[in-house]
Order: sequence, then structure tokens, then C-alpha cells
Amino acid sequence: MQILRVNMDQRSTSREDLDDHCRDWAGRGLIARVLLREVEPTCAALGPRNKLIIANGFLAGTRVSSSGRISVGAKSPLTGGIKEANAGGVAGDALARLGLRSIVVEGSPKEDALYLLKIGKDSAEFLSAEEFRGLGTYALCDKLYERYGKKIAVICIGPAGEHRMAAAGVAVNDADGYPSRYAGRGGLGAVMGAKGLKAIVLEDVRAEVPIANKEAFREAQKRLNAALLENPSTGKEFPEYGTISMLNKIHKLGGIPTRNFSQGTFDEHYPKLSAEGVRQTIVERGGEGTPTHGCMQGCVIRCSNVFPDARGKAIVSPLEYENLVMLGPNLGIFSLDQIAKLNYMCNDFGTDTIETGVSIGVAMEAGIIPFGDFEGAAKLMNGIAEGTVLGRVIGQGAATAGRVLGVKRVPVMKGQGVAAYDPRAVKGIGVSYVTSPMGADHTAGHTVYAKIDHHLPEGQIQTSLASQILRAAYDTVCICGFAIAAIGGNPTLITDLMNATHGTKLEPTSIQEMGKQVLRMERTFNKSAGFTKAHDTCPEFFRTEKLPPYDLTFDVPQEDIDHFFDPIEN
Amino acid sequence: MQILRVNMDQRSTSREDLDDHCRDWAGRGLIARVLLREVEPTCAALGPRNKLIIANGFLAGTRVSSSGRISVGAKSPLTGGIKEANAGGVAGDALARLGLRSIVVEGSPKEDALYLLKIGKDSAEFLSAEEFRGLGTYALCDKLYERYGKKIAVICIGPAGEHRMAAAGVAVNDADGYPSRYAGRGGLGAVMGAKGLKAIVLEDVRAEVPIANKEAFREAQKRLNAALLENPSTGKEFPEYGTISMLNKIHKLGGIPTRNFSQGTFDEHYPKLSAEGVRQTIVERGGEGTPTHGCMQGCVIRCSNVFPDARGKAIVSPLEYENLVMLGPNLGIFSLDQIAKLNYMCNDFGTDTIETGVSIGVAMEAGIIPFGDFEGAAKLMNGIAEGTVLGRVIGQGAATAGRVLGVKRVPVMKGQGVAAYDPRAVKGIGVSYVTSPMGADHTAGHTVYAKIDHHLPEGQIQTSLASQILRAAYDTVCICGFAIAAIGGNPTLITDLMNATHGTKLEPTSIQEMGKQVLRMERTFNKSAGFTKAHDTCPEFFRTEKLPPYDLTFDVPQEDIDHFFDPIEN
Repeated sequence: MQILRVNMDQRSTSREDLDDHCRDWAGRGLIARVLLREVEPTCAALGPRNKLIIANGFLAGTRVSSSGRISVGAKSPLTGGIKEANAGGVAGDALARLGLRSIVVEGSPKEDALYLLKIGKDSAEFLSAEEFRGLGTYALCDKLYERYGKKIAVICIGPAGEHRMAAAGVAVNDADGYPSRYAGRGGLGAVMGAKGLKAIVLEDVRAEVPIANKEAFREAQKRLNAALLENPSTGKEFPEYGTISMLNKIHKLGGIPTRNFSQGTFDEHYPKLSAEGVRQTIVERGGEGTPTHGCMQGCVIRCSNVFPDARGKAIVSPLEYENLVMLGPNLGIFSLDQIAKLNYMCNDFGTDTIETGVSIGVAMEAGIIPFGDFEGAAKLMNGIAEGTVLGRVIGQGAATAGRVLGVKRVPVMKGQGVAAYDPRAVKGIGVSYVTSPMGADHTAGHTVYAKIDHHLPEGQIQTSLASQILRAAYDTVCICGFAIAAIGGNPTLITDLMNATHGTKLEPTSIQEMGKQVLRMERTFNKSAGFTKAHDTCPEFFRTEKLPPYDLTFDVPQEDIDHFFDPIEN
Repeated sequence: MQILRVNMDQRSTSREDLDDHCRDWAGRGLIARVLLREVEPTCAALGPRNKLIIANGFLAGTRVSSSGRISVGAKSPLTGGIKEANAGGVAGDALARLGLRSIVVEGSPKEDALYLLKIGKDSAEFLSAEEFRGLGTYALCDKLYERYGKKIAVICIGPAGEHRMAAAGVAVNDADGYPSRYAGRGGLGAVMGAKGLKAIVLEDVRAEVPIANKEAFREAQKRLNAALLENPSTGKEFPEYGTISMLNKIHKLGGIPTRNFSQGTFDEHYPKLSAEGVRQTIVERGGEGTPTHGCMQGCVIRCSNVFPDARGKAIVSPLEYENLVMLGPNLGIFSLDQIAKLNYMCNDFGTDTIETGVSIGVAMEAGIIPFGDFEGAAKLMNGIAEGTVLGRVIGQGAATAGRVLGVKRVPVMKGQGVAAYDPRAVKGIGVSYVTSPMGADHTAGHTVYAKIDHHLPEGQIQTSLASQILRAAYDTVCICGFAIAAIGGNPTLITDLMNATHGTKLEPTSIQEMGKQVLRMERTFNKSAGFTKAHDTCPEFFRTEKLPPYDLTFDVPQEDIDHFFDPIEN
């Protein structure tokens, strides 16, 4: 496996072998490793000294279920700290088949030019992307499929990334060609835009990735699949309802962000928006719609869906829990069709659905448009694509929108919008939001499946830390977060596969160690970038304003939070 | 001397004696002291836990030349750190005559209400200010003079402060009734707005402040006046040309921010905008115009002016160096009348002229309006007063404007716009911008009068540190910065006056010690607020882009900057 270095000043590329520094790393860990070694933490996130790093995982290309995710990272223009976000889709595997572990994009073009980078087995070619300027991701991919065939993998940005907006994500196409798999958070699309890169096209090569011990591999793969199928979440709940099964759980906890985090439930609309309600709508409408759908080859979970309109025509794929909540209840919008349309616009314009939802929620609180105003929200979205002043305010993310529009209740941590779990009702995720080097990111330390009372302050510190370590490790292996429900307690399921693939002798404990080391690297970067304990805090309203209906505040003691990382740092 | 505590939740006030903690402090030092003791550094700057602190100096009310300034401070909504800004005018003395060293404004009204606080010798009264909502400072003061007489002192905000914009300042009226003396920087007007305070009216009482040793006082005052009159700057240059004498010096150094810091000179327009040119215009036009004018009683420097239009009607008072440059050449505007009009608008709407100038310059670089477009700039200013979305973008300061509008060259440090000295050409002030706890503030460490080559990196660290210590001390005594040229090397001129007034036995060395202690307190606050060495950096373009005509970059080594405060911190 090699690294492809891409220099945007010179428009040159070079392949290099993984050196001692990088050999044992992939995904999120490799990103931390390269950033820490090569990027000045105080540099301008949108300047030429930042680097955009794309990396797949240790099992990429093997078609092991849930192992083909792709990590994207850089210094974040949203948080000012380190950022990794990962996506499903086909790019992780495609990169591996090209013999690449990572693409490191450096510098930036002198002039304001836009490029396409096309990577083949032994080639890497820059092409002008001026003809694609301003194009949404769907139209872009259609043009690229037309030119290069349907089997390419595409890593691209929409107009939001071209405008260098801090809510812009990096899109990856999925097995059906939808460019809707997002390394969404932290403004990585803006970094790609600042590098002058509209898209990276990975040619489809039919190569197999080398596997050191095929028999052991097959055996380990069988065990993983069995574990995924046996687990009630990955074997039944996710395949049947997709990620929206989460809605039922969080609604019960009273933790669904509703009208800019002012309520935790939305009772009258619940039947329609619940996991059962969404599934029923998809099934009843039929047509292109399907309640189960895989984003990557080989996945046995298949948690994705295709949400159709009343005539059966696909509106968006997937309609996920986060997107449904942040673009729905958080905006006072309860029509599935309207939510799906906003979701499509985010995917097409290239913005993170979570940051966009939080940002529009803040604009609604400011009175720019009323809660529930779908047409107004769609107009704001169009403003993002067009780069109007108001569109730019929204597109720079919730912290900037709140600041500009003079809003007091701005749900952000480390400058990043809070995801679809109100920290007052799911306090373990609240702790993750506050402490994670990534900012308010639910994927960095999900705690909903922990056996703990999510309303009590007790135990959340330990639960969040355990989850953050696990997540950092599996984001490094590039295993899908949904698989963790089944494999979290049984790391041999993964280390056996890694050993069989690479001929290594990893112990199961190496997963824990890997997670801790990633968090330490990320915190070291952030410290040099200017982060201190003062940044591990949450907006005052979460601590003072009671969340209906359970009148909850975020009451995990700040003093405990101040010592959160002590157990893994000397 | 007492402190008036003002509680905006309850709309209650109470007087308290200066306790041991505060007794030896005034002005900027008292602000640091109270903030460090009473305000959580991570609190929301516009939330109820921040405090707005107003404080006069040790010689307030004595009519000693240049001693009546007033400090305003809080946690800054612009920088996120500690902020003190001070102003001339009549409030400092008036406060002293009311027996007050300080007003500490706490909490915030539950509802969105606006108040007037009227303070008398033994009274403090809240009145509704709803009728003044949206009013500019000039019209507000006219109404207050009408109601309470012309001799009141007024501390107030314009619409920008009501809108809680981070470029909003706090205005103080001068001896002629113009509300144009500004504690401008750092968004203190937004903090006052968030407290629901439109204005504080200080009644005029004819009391004299007590002086312990009148004979020694008179003798020391005589010596100070002689020193001010003998010094070439305070005795001749400032009285004749006002602060605009600085323009000639900085133009010669090639350090005048021109078209968003892309040039350091503007040769063809120089004759008109130079100190001689401005004076000549004022003298020729006559009428209400005057090239010399005192902002405080007793001042022997009288550096202020009144700038008239062609018919002799006052446009603005004063037209100062900073304002002339940041609203003129920095915007590509070279008409004195246009500059004076923009200056008036800033004063009336309640925005800091520097931050506003930097912010509009950034908007011009983004292409919102072209450089040189006075009408466009005036329209942007009106947008600030009206609170339009674009007005809010500009009014939140240059860092936010640059972020929203996608500008690469954003001249800010610690989130605050750079003043009228390009750090590449006046490198000592550059070091002050980078290191000062106040952000890019020229008053925090002015170095132009130091005998040093301002173009060389050598010696700037030492020069800036010496200046920052001196400025912190004299901002604590509340002595005008312009007097420092004459008294900087002779602290007995001030300590003798302080001793004569208060019966103390201060040594001349206590000035140095006071300055160091203030800087230490401010840095302690900032550290707890989350500031590290990573924040003592400057935008990349100052280090990489050569400033014409002398092709200068800011090349003071970052390593030296990282150790800047070592000499005063253990």
C-alpha cells in the first residue's frame, strides 16, 4: 500500500511507500499521524499549508462487511482543530484496489482554478474542472459516469465546498451511484475547495487486494458475518429500519432536537417519523424506494434506504436518523417529503446535513424565517449554493450564523453544531461532544447502547471515554460505526481479519491501544493549535435551560470533564 | 471613592467602598482585578455572567492635564479575551465628582428591555429607554441634554451596541457635547447592549475631589504642564496638527494601511491627507472648524479638532489619524469630506472606527463593493444601524466578515482588526498586536516614538514590551496616551501627583510594577479563557506578502514572540 502525494501548486503527483512512521496506521489514525508530523497546527485551515488527507482502512478492498469506509481529514476551518470524518460508499475499496492507503493533497493553486484529479493503477492526471464549476454533486457524477463509466469511485464537493464554506462536506458515491455518502463534518469540503479540487475520480480496476492467509481470512470473515447477523441491532434492527431505529430510542429519552433544541419530543408527529412510520411510507410508496440498501459491497447490515415520493420516484438515499432530525424536527418541519427534499439539497450542494440543520435552526431562532417554514429553508439552502451573503452566513455553520444573527442559544461545541442527540437527555454523548477533539460529533463517542441511565450525570464520563477510545480505533480500521454494536466487545473479530490479511500478529488489546494513541495524537495537535480545557465546555443554555418534557439540564460536573482524559494521559 | 454595583436582573444598585482587593487600583488595572476575581473567563461574553466595568483613574476630577480618561472593560465578544478600552471626554471627571471610582454592571434583564441609568450624588435611578431605541448617539445626547441640561456626562451606545455587534463601542461625550469619545475597541458596546443599557447619565455636581496635600499638588501639576509644553510632541506637534501628525511619520515608513493592507503609501493623495493638508483645509474652511480642541477639561495638549464641510459646518469632531486612515486609504477613499462623513456615521451608530474600517476593507476585498466606493461604504454603514444581514456581517468585525465572505487576507489578531499601522512597516507595533492580551490594538504598545529602525526585526520585542508595560500602567492611572511622549521617561511627574492627591508614598518605580502586574492579571484571565501561545500569531499574509513600496514582511521570529512575556513572568 502506498501514499499518493498530490501537489496543487505544481499540479504534480508522486507515489511513495508507507514509511515506518505511517506503516501501522490507516484511516483516522493515519490522518492524525500525518497532520501531526507535517502540518503546522496554527496554520490557516483554508491556506496552502493545510493538507487534505484521504485514507482507507486496513481491510479496504477485501469486501469484509462494514470495512470499506473512507476517512477524510485536515485542520478544520470550522473548529480550528484536527478533523476526521468518514463515509461509506465505494471509494475506500476502490482506493485499495489502486494500491493506495492514502491520498495527501498539499498546497493550493496560485490562481483561482478548479481541477479534477483522475487516478488509475499507475497514473494520476489533472484535468480542468472549470466546466463543472457550481455543479451539484448529482449532476457532476452523472457527467463523470458518462465520461468514465459507471464503475468509477468519485470523491467530490458541491458548490458549498467551492465557496469554502465551513459546513461543506466531502461526498463519496455509493454502490448505486448516488453521491450521498458524506465525510460531512468540520468543513472538509471547504478544504478541498481551497485546494482547487472539484473531484477525485478513482478508476475501477479489477485487482484483488493481497491477502496473506486466505484460509484464516475466510474463517474470520465467516465469524464476523455471524456475529453481525446474530446481534439484535446489526442483524435485525438496522437491516429492518435503518438508522432511523434510533429515533424511537431518543424520542423515548426526550432527547430529539426540536425547534433549535427547545424541546426533546414531538408527540403528535411521532407515528409518522418513527422507525415504523418511515418504513411503512417507503414500503407503501414502493417504486424506487426501498427500506434496506447497502452503501458498500459486502455489507451484511444494509442499514441504508431509498426514500421515494408519492409516485415512487426516489427523493433521496439515504434518509438517515441524523438528517431526518436535524432537517426535520429541529426546524419544526415534520413532513417526510419536505425533510427528504432538504436532505437531497444538502447532498447536492455539498453541505453537512447536521451543521446545516443546526445553522438553519439558529437562523429560525433569529427570526430570519419561522420554524416550520420549508419553503424558507429551501430558499436558504439555495442561497448556500449561490453564495449569497445570507447563504454564506448559514453555510459557515451554526457558530458563525449565531454570532452574525445575534442568537443567544447556539448549540455548538468547539465551534461545531450539535448532532441529533440533545446533550441534556443523552448525557454520555453530551460528554463526548464537550471533550472530543472533534467537537460536537456524535460519532466520536456514541453512548446510546451503553447500559446506563442516560438522564443521570453519573457514569457518563467513563461511558463516553470507553466509547471514544473504541470509536477512534474503529475509525482507524475504517469499520462502520454500526458494526460496533456487534463487535465492540469482541475485538478478535477484527484483529483476526487484520492478521489474516496482513500477516501481522496483533493482539486483541491492540484495538484499545490504537484508540488511545489516536486520541493522544489528536489532542496533541489541538493543544498546539491553541485548545485548552477552556474549550472543553458547553454553551450555557444546556446547563441552565431545562429541556421539556423531562426538565433535564446538562449537569455532568465540569470538574469531572476537566479530568476526562487523565486516565489515558499519564 | 466607591464602586457602584448595578444589577440589571433586579434593576437595583448599591454603593460599596473599595475593599483591600480594589483599593490600589483604577482604570484598566481595576478592570483586570474585578474580572479576574468575579467573572468566569469561559462565560459567554454577551451573557448575564459577564460584567461591564467602567472605571476612572487616580487623578480623575482633579483637572490635571490628560488625567480624566475613562476605562471600559469586560470579557470581549470580539476576541473572547479580556478587554479594556478607554476614552477622553467628561465622564471620567464627572464620575469622580460623584465619589465613584467605578461602575460595575452585572446580569442582564430577563426581557428584551432597554434602560437608562441616571446617577446622582446619592442616587441611582433606572428609567425606561424604550423611546431611545435605535437612536444614534448624537440624537440621543441632544434629547438627554434637553431633559437634564448640557452639563451631564453621558456614557452610551448607538444602534450597533443595541444589536450586540462585536464592532460596537461605548461612546462618551466631550466638553462640547459631542458623543464622539470612544472606548471603541473589542465590542464593549455590544456588552452594554446585552446588559440592556442604552445610556448612563452622570449628573453634574460641583463637588471638588479631595486633595490630600494641595501645595504639593499645585507644584507637581505645574511641573507636569511644563513638561507637556516643553516636549516637542505634546507641546507643539499634537497641539498644532492633532493626532494626524502621525500620518506623515507612518507614510514615510510606508506603513499606512491602504486598500485592505495591500499598500503602505498613497503618494498622489498625500498632500491633501497629510497633517499640513488637513490643518490647511480646516483653517481655510473656518466656521465651526478648528484644528485644536480639547476633549477634557484642563488639557494642555488639545490634540483634537473639529472638521468642517465647505460651508464651515462641522462634519465630525475629532477627525483623528486612526479614523482618517482606516475609513480613508484603507478603503481606497481619499476625500476628506467623505472620510469625515464615514467617521461621523461610526460615531453616531456606535461602532469602532478601526474595526469598522478593517471590516469594510475586507468586504471590499471580497468584492461586495469596490475600493473607493464611498456611497457603497455609507450604505454598508446604514446596514449596520438597521441590523440587516450584511450589516450584521460587517458589524461583527473583520474576522467574522472575512470568514463569511470567504476572504483570504483578513488583517486581524486574536480576532480583532489591525489598527492604522501595518505591522510589516512598524514592526514594534506588529509585535504588540501579536502579543498583547488586547489583540491587534495599537494603544496597547505603541512604538513609533522609540529610537529604533521600525523596518528591522531586531529590537522590536524589547521595544514593544517596554511600551506595553508603560501603557498598561498609564491606562490604569487613566493618563492620555498622548502625554506619554512627555512623561514616559519621568514617572515622578505622575507619582508625585498621585501622592499629593491621595497622601500615598508611591515610588517612581511603582509605575513599572503596576504595568507588569496589570499585564500578568490580563494574561491570567486570557489563559483561563483558553488563550495559549498559538493565539500569539499573525495572519499568514503579513509574513509572506511583501508590502509595497518597501517590500516589507513581518519577520520578527515567532520563537522570540513565543518568549515575549518571559521577562515579566518568572
